Formats: sequence, C-alpha cells, structure tokens
Amino acid sequence: MGTLDNQTTADWLQSVRWNSADNQLDLLDQRLLPDEIVYLELTTSEQVWDAIKQLAVRGAPAIGIAAAFGVYLGVRETSGSREQLLDEAVKQCDYLATSRPTAVNLFWALDRMRQRAGALASAGGEPEAMKQALLDEAKLIQSEDEETCRLIGEHALALFEDGMGVLTHCNAGGLATARYGTALAPMYLAQERGIHLKVYADETRPVLQGARLTAFELQQAGVDVTLICDNMAGAIMNKGWVQAVIVGTDRVAANGDVANKIGTYSVAVLAKAHGIPFYVACPMSTIDLNTPNGDDIPIEERHEDEITQGFGKRTAPQGIKVYNPAFDVTPNEYVTAIITEKGVIRAPYNENLKKLFAEA
Amino acid sequence: MGTLDNQTTADWLQSVRWNSADNQLDLLDQRLLPDEIVYLELTTSEQVWDAIKQLAVRGAPAIGIAAAFGVYLGVRETSGSREQLLDEAVKQCDYLATSRPTAVNLFWALDRMRQRAGALASAGGEPEAMKQALLDEAKLIQSEDEETCRLIGEHALALFEDGMGVLTHCNAGGLATARYGTALAPMYLAQERGIHLKVYADETRPVLQGARLTAFELQQAGVDVTLICDNMAGAIMNKGWVQAVIVGTDRVAANGDVANKIGTYSVAVLAKAHGIPFYVACPMSTIDLNTPNGDDIPIEERHEDEITQGFGKRTAPQGIKVYNPAFDVTPNEYVTAIITEKGVIRAPYNENLKKLFAEA
Repeated sequence: MGTLDNQTTADWLQSVRWNSADNQLDLLDQRLLPDEIVYLELTTSEQVWDAIKQLAVRGAPAIGIAAAFGVYLGVRETSGSREQLLDEAVKQCDYLATSRPTAVNLFWALDRMRQRAGALASAGGEPEAMKQALLDEAKLIQSEDEETCRLIGEHALALFEDGMGVLTHCNAGGLATARYGTALAPMYLAQERGIHLKVYADETRPVLQGARLTAFELQQAGVDVTLICDNMAGAIMNKGWVQAVIVGTDRVAANGDVANKIGTYSVAVLAKAHGIPFYVACPMSTIDLNTPNGDDIPIEERHEDEITQGFGKRTAPQGIKVYNPAFDVTPNEYVTAIITEKGVIRAPYNENLKKLFAEA
Repeated sequence: MGTLDNQTTADWLQSVRWNSADNQLDLLDQRLLPDEIVYLELTTSEQVWDAIKQLAVRGAPAIGIAAAFGVYLGVRETSGSREQLLDEAVKQCDYLATSRPTAVNLFWALDRMRQRAGALASAGGEPEAMKQALLDEAKLIQSEDEETCRLIGEHALALFEDGMGVLTHCNAGGLATARYGTALAPMYLAQERGIHLKVYADETRPVLQGARLTAFELQQAGVDVTLICDNMAGAIMNKGWVQAVIVGTDRVAANGDVANKIGTYSVAVLAKAHGIPFYVACPMSTIDLNTPNGDDIPIEERHEDEITQGFGKRTAPQGIKVYNPAFDVTPNEYVTAIITEKGVIRAPYNENLKKLFAEA
C-alpha cells in the first residue's frame, strides 16, 4: 500500500491505474477519501475481488475496469497450454463476477474479457501472447470508458443552461469511471467552457459517497458545489434552487427502470413532484436488455454497521434492527431521459433502448 | 455533571427532571445518547440557555419545559421588591427566548411564566413566595405536558390498526417531551395494549435524532422498530411497508403549514406520492395562530460541522460549501391531519384550527 501526495501521474485523480513499471494494479482506496489519498497495490485477482467487495473501488464503470485488470492478474501466473489458459481465464471471470451483484458493467466487462480470451484461443494464440492481449483488452476497456464519458458529458451538457442548479446523488464522477464520470461529466465540460452550473451534492448515506467523493472531486476541479444531507433535497427543490437532477446508474433494465444507489428513487419522486427533469447518465454497457424490468435486478443488502457506526463511532443503539439496501429501483415513469455516449434516449424505453442497440 | 446508570428515579428516561433535593435542574444530555446516559446539573439560567442552544435538550415541548425551569433558576437569587423580581423574571424570559428561534413551545412556555409572574406581582405576592410559585408553574407545565402527550397518543392510536407500518422522522418521543412524546405516543400506548405497530425510524441527518433517540427509546420500550437512512423512506414506501407517517412539529402556522426537522417535507411529499396519510402530532401549544403561514416561520441554520464532521470524524472535504437548515416547512396540502390533545384536526386548517382554540 502506498501513500501518495495529491499529485498523481495523471493530472486528475484516477481511481483505477495500471502500473506498468511494477506490473500491478494501483487502485485508489475510495473508502479513505477525502482525508487520505492511498493507492492499494494489487497483484492478485483475489485482492481485486476484495477491493470490489469492500468498496475500495466503487462506481459501476470503475468496477468493470478493475475487474478486467483482475482477470489479467488472475491468469498471468498460469502455465500450460492455451486451453488451460482459456479455462483459467473463464474461471477468473466467473470468480470476479461474484464480488458484487447489482452493477451490470461488472458482468459486461467480464463477458468481454471472456470473449476475448475465447477468440484468442480460437485464433491459436500462444499463452504468453494471450496474457498480454488480455492486459491490452483491460486497458482498452479503460480508455474507451474515458471517451464514452466525455461523449455522455457532451450530450448531457446540451440539456443544461448557464446558471442552472443541478442536483446529483451518490458519486457518478471521475472516481467512478476512467475519467469525467457519467452524471458529473457535463459539470466538468461546463467548467472547461466557462458555463456556470450550481451543483448540489446529496451526501448519500450510509457510505457518504456524495460527501466524500462527489463534493471532493468537483471541489478539486473548481466546480461550484454545495453539500447537503439527503433529506434536504426536497426542501431545496421547493425553494426553486434545482432545475435538473442527474444521476448515474448500476443497471438500466430493458424497460428503462433504473437501479442506482439507495435514495435515488426518493430523489426521482421528489423531482417529479416539483416538475424537475430527472436524468440518468450511463454508458451503453450499463443497459441490460436481458433484464426485462427493475423487479429482476438483484438488490444487494449490506451490513448494518454502515448505518449504526458508519462514522467510526456508534450512532445507534446496540442490537437495533436495520434495513440497509445498497440500491433502489426507479421505475421508468420517473426517468425524463437516459443519456448515453450515443445520445439521449426518452420514453417509450422498451422500444427506444432496443432501437439504440440495433443502431449501435 | 453526573453519570447515572440506565436506572433513573422514574421508570422511564426523563429528559427534564427537577431535582428538589439539590434544588437544581437535571437535564439528560441527549447529545450523548444512546451511548451514555448523563444528566447535566444546571443551577443558572445561562446554563439552561446553553443547553437549549447546544441541543443537550431538544424537542419542542422539552425545550419549553426546560426554559420554564430556567426562569426560576434565573430569578431565585434575586433580592429586592416584588417589582424588581417581576422585572428580573421578564428579563429572564426575554433572554431564554433567544436560545433557539423555531420552536414555538419555547415562547409559549416563557409567555406563560411571564404572565404568571405578572399575575403574582399584581396580586401583591411576596418575593420569596413568588419564586416558589414560578417553580411550581414550571412543574405544572411539565405535568400538563405528560397528560397532553397521553391524550395525543389516544387520538393518534385511533387512526392506526394492528399490524400497520408507521414511519417517523426525527424524535418526537418521550425524550422530546415530559413523557410519551407526541408522534411516538401512539406507539407507546399500542405497546401497552398489545397492538403491534411496525415502526420505521428515519435516522435524521445531520444530528441523527432518529438513530440516537427514537430508535433507542422505542427499543427500550420493546416496540418493534427498524432504523433506516433518510433516503430509504421512498424505497420502503414503494415496497408497501408503510401505511402511515407520523411526525412531531416545532411550529404549526394558522393555515396548517408545519415546521419540523429538516427532511420532514421530503417525507411528506413522498407519502403523498404513495397515497400514505401524513399525520402531525403536537400539543396545542405548538400551534401558533399569530403565524399566518409557513413563510413566516424563521428557520434556524446551523453550523456546517454538523454535516462535515458530525461524528467526530471528518466526512467531507475541507472548505466545502454546505447548506444546513435545521427545519423545513411542509405546506398544509401535504398534512392529512394534525393530532392534538383536543382531538384530530383536518383541512381546512385556517378555519378548523381557529375553531379548536375558540372551543378550548
């Protein structure tokens, strides 16, 4: 584990970073932000699995990228034939897929690695060359994600106007992706272009990704950001301070239902009640046409400690019953538009999401 | 300051307790709950002012009771004529009224003490007897509040049915009043009568009165209570787990607009969107016919530290902008009914609240 200054090799804080010099994955430990900037130095797929499970890396696209590198770390010591390497690659993909249940990008990235391994083996690749090609594939997933996020930002920014108040929940920022983020991408692009957006960041209990990550990364970039508690969202909407809500997502079902961080549903209902558009920003890899609707999205429940002693100090009585789902599902009727790298999709989602994939 | 075992002189945890033996006010320091049960030993009105300001005592009725005892503590050393004592009593009332701006019970209790002092002086009372009478008046305010809360509980419980899920926000419980609470009173009465209510307690950021106080006092009483983060309220309503919302209030305006802990407005909007009744429980002393509507209720803004490092640990970046209102206003159209000791009031509130006071 290495502690670095705020100064990283990139000029932004990169959550997942392949370290060629040491042939290892340097993973920003997001649990320690904003107080400490510490990169975990991962050399095995088990370490990557743990880092995903324990939320050292979080954010649907970043999880997918980390898992892809995890596949490489899991196979690089494998000796034997190309078939044995392929078997191991598939096994590693299956294993890493068990780290978290909700984010579809995880499965998408691992499917892509699985297919790449299969194609390499079918093409008669040599084991060592196959390993290198799997590492290159993980790097490609990462660099494509950066471009994807930039495009999402372009499409989203077209929906915003100078001076608008924009509310976001959780962190769908640069830290959750290769760069720029999904929901935060338009804010970075606006900043670059001198367009002023007044951003409100929900702190996002229980793990406080909004307070620790969104507020932090936007502040670092000089974006005008104000931190609020989750329960203040309705009050500031009622004051007329919010003209748009934009969030990321861990999975979009074929009908446009959206799974995202717990609390997103409340924000969507509040937005609708105040006549405020509710936008969801994500790469196409987050849209899962194989999941018919939100009822089919598995929702992870997490440990009660996140609620009862999430601040390093016990804040609830011993033995209290707790309900702690990590995500909720926002039905499609609350979603004004889904913003992808290919453009802005609106209802009817069943039809228009299918069309989007057919065209892509 | 004295640390006591959970065992108190009363068989419940009393937030404001006059200590006759030591002629002082023993005030449960609610900031330390649920970890520590500590009573502050207050002997001056300045200490009472601080305790209100710093939230050692909170909850609109409990603040009023504490302030009433504070008046006695402020005058008991006064020497001189009955006019000098009256002057001092009025001065103490004015001073204690500056401790917090939103809870109308504070001003109501201090007005009552002021009037009592005036009546005693007019009746030609002797200074020492007047002091004793002011202490008795504070005790009377407290014992009346207990009876008031019990009656509120009776009226509220008539609206509930066995097996219902009931959501509450913040703490309007025994700790916030002389006993029973307002919003929690029906839960205590249900418990005594073997009626099962499944209570959901919002943790209530930033100060976590729901996690620290509501979850604690209901658990102590054996009520079935589940703690959730504020942003989960919408999700559990959508699951059909909540059949009623009941909250307390710091001030009800003449038109039925309700000021209460920040986040109450969001809960009210969510309840309406899910067709769930939203009840407000309060003594008549919380209803302020002199405040025409919610826009006229001053909303206290509190220090940003409550959000950025509310638990002894920094959870947001240094220098981040924060918005931290202690309360919000829920417009009357979201309020299904207001439950007082005199019965259940429904819209039109302007008319029906006026009628309530005319009859009382």
